[in-house]
Amino acid sequence: MKVDGKPYRTIWLADDGWAVEIIDQTKLPHAFIVVRLEDLQTACTAIRDMWVRGAPLIGATAAYGMALAMRADPSDAGFENAYDRLYETRPTAVNLRWALDEMKALLTPLDPGDRAAAAYGRAAEICDEDVGICSSIGDHGAELIREAWEKKGKPSLADGGVNVLTHCNAGWLATVDWGTALAPIYKAHDAGIPVHVWVDETRPRNQGASLTAWELGQHGVPNTLVVDNVGGHLMQHGMVDLVITGTDRTTGTGDVCNKIGTYLKALAARDNGVPFYVGLPGPTIDWTLADGVKEIPIEERDADEVTVITGRAAGGDVASVTITPDGAKAANYAFDVTPARLVTGLITERGVAEASKDCLSALYPEKG
Amino acid sequence: MKVDGKPYRTIWLADDGWAVEIIDQTKLPHAFIVVRLEDLQTACTAIRDMWVRGAPLIGATAAYGMALAMRADPSDAGFENAYDRLYETRPTAVNLRWALDEMKALLTPLDPGDRAAAAYGRAAEICDEDVGICSSIGDHGAELIREAWEKKGKPSLADGGVNVLTHCNAGWLATVDWGTALAPIYKAHDAGIPVHVWVDETRPRNQGASLTAWELGQHGVPNTLVVDNVGGHLMQHGMVDLVITGTDRTTGTGDVCNKIGTYLKALAARDNGVPFYVGLPGPTIDWTLADGVKEIPIEERDADEVTVITGRAAGGDVASVTITPDGAKAANYAFDVTPARLVTGLITERGVAEASKDCLSALYPEKG
Repeated sequence: MKVDGKPYRTIWLADDGWAVEIIDQTKLPHAFIVVRLEDLQTACTAIRDMWVRGAPLIGATAAYGMALAMRADPSDAGFENAYDRLYETRPTAVNLRWALDEMKALLTPLDPGDRAAAAYGRAAEICDEDVGICSSIGDHGAELIREAWEKKGKPSLADGGVNVLTHCNAGWLATVDWGTALAPIYKAHDAGIPVHVWVDETRPRNQGASLTAWELGQHGVPNTLVVDNVGGHLMQHGMVDLVITGTDRTTGTGDVCNKIGTYLKALAARDNGVPFYVGLPGPTIDWTLADGVKEIPIEERDADEVTVITGRAAGGDVASVTITPDGAKAANYAFDVTPARLVTGLITERGVAEASKDCLSALYPEKG
Repeated sequence: MKVDGKPYRTIWLADDGWAVEIIDQTKLPHAFIVVRLEDLQTACTAIRDMWVRGAPLIGATAAYGMALAMRADPSDAGFENAYDRLYETRPTAVNLRWALDEMKALLTPLDPGDRAAAAYGRAAEICDEDVGICSSIGDHGAELIREAWEKKGKPSLADGGVNVLTHCNAGWLATVDWGTALAPIYKAHDAGIPVHVWVDETRPRNQGASLTAWELGQHGVPNTLVVDNVGGHLMQHGMVDLVITGTDRTTGTGDVCNKIGTYLKALAARDNGVPFYVGLPGPTIDWTLADGVKEIPIEERDADEVTVITGRAAGGDVASVTITPDGAKAANYAFDVTPARLVTGLITERGVAEASKDCLSALYPEKG
């Protein structure tokens, strides 16, 4: 997608053809800083310190990190070291493990002299595959936006356009390009459909305010930030035509584990007859899970994320402030589960499926 | 209620018997500062600049502001001037207008020489009446908390106690004492029931984080701050036994207009079988309204409340940071309406009523 008018992915080869460039997302939205990765160590830091985030982008960065490592030391020992060091950056990230195992299967049978070129080739493929999946999610989801717009009588933006509400950031910044929840929005916008996005702030980490509002704005998609409390009111008053979110984990039965607060928006959508969609790559569905509320453990994160807020101070520097009384106790549940009964449809690269075991199995007969 | 172990109201006569003291609530939770009001001008500033907030407390401050004005100039011109200047501090505050009209009816027939004493007397009555109403709300609501606790088998705090979720601040800081939504909690706590409160942060103005967490903590009520996104997850997992909120406006049919986000919590409560109660003084019910969603206009406030957050910087000073990209657009709807169908009961000074025209009319036959 575009930044300041110029097309970008979130990870790419530098002009010299071997170094890797990424965006330091921890600096957004206050500064757009491209970082050059030249070795394994910096690639590990980029993942561990969350310069890159989002499952697909973490996987892609690990793949390129392995390519950089193979360029420096393609021996068996060099491979093992790179695998271990990349793996321990974020050991719970499923895509990280997957990308490293792809590399392992590819590289171990090869002569050391052939490993670097093969690793660069596979890393590029992993990126392109992700872009292809997200682009297809976008194509299928854009049709839903188009239908909602046509049903309203094709109003111009000035007459209200078509309004999508989203929660957190499942945009191009979380993937290699396009995003999952935001891909349909970009595709609709690029096709000339007058789409406007309500961006949930997404406390406590404010990914909506800092990332989604930024990337939509850079690409020119009209958007309005609201606090997480607002969505129900908007839906009561006909100001949301559809909700589209991403997902961290999806059960084979269609339950959606996503950023905390998603469930509240799904309830409001149901209460007001607003369709609630979830964009996701089909390969991320966890077919071993049947009841998301009961089976998915919810991560509790540091209370500081609730009590301390970071932003741009008056002088322009990034600063943090504490919003609570001294000694206040806070709890920080990071995700919640939206039961399949509240999900209108799952937008995948193969099409839109009802959130049920039968419909998902029909779309992925090889899995379900 | 108590601050640092010492009982306080939110407004009281100074030891000299004529000046009025209040808490500068804009400094909470980072500093507890008592301000002495000696004249009309300072009373107006206290209301306009929100040193005091909450409908009952605004009314009480206006009443005492009139008493201070009558002490300085009890002439007809002095009264008219004080009425106008107090009224224009927050012209949409219903209790402000009501308190001033009470004073007008009382003072205009009197000789100027008798006005100051009469005004002080009526101001004290207005405060005591509010305390009486809130105390009764507390007594009725505490029974609901006790019943929920007994139904669970009277667990100790260590075994989970009884858990109430609240949104925004409808505590003693918003009234003269006790509060509305929080009065049942204080009464239950003081009666030895092991109650724990989940405090919604309440973006964008963070009244939960800055006021509710502070006042509960000062009185010794165990509480945990959560972001507004969390309540649904808590209810899905049996971690909330009842929800109690306040209300800004209530229709004669039981629709509740309260701080933005209340509706989302009511939806989650309904979806999980958690009772959803609203604490309010019966006199604040608006019997002219029948459909809250359609008839109550929702105030849109300044976008800066969303994009700029204030807290305590590392050095201890109060500072503000901007959390959004430059040029980000934000919308700030201040309230939403929870339809009566989602409200389990309205806790009033006369008892608990179902949220319906018939039940409210039965409780207030002189009104409904």
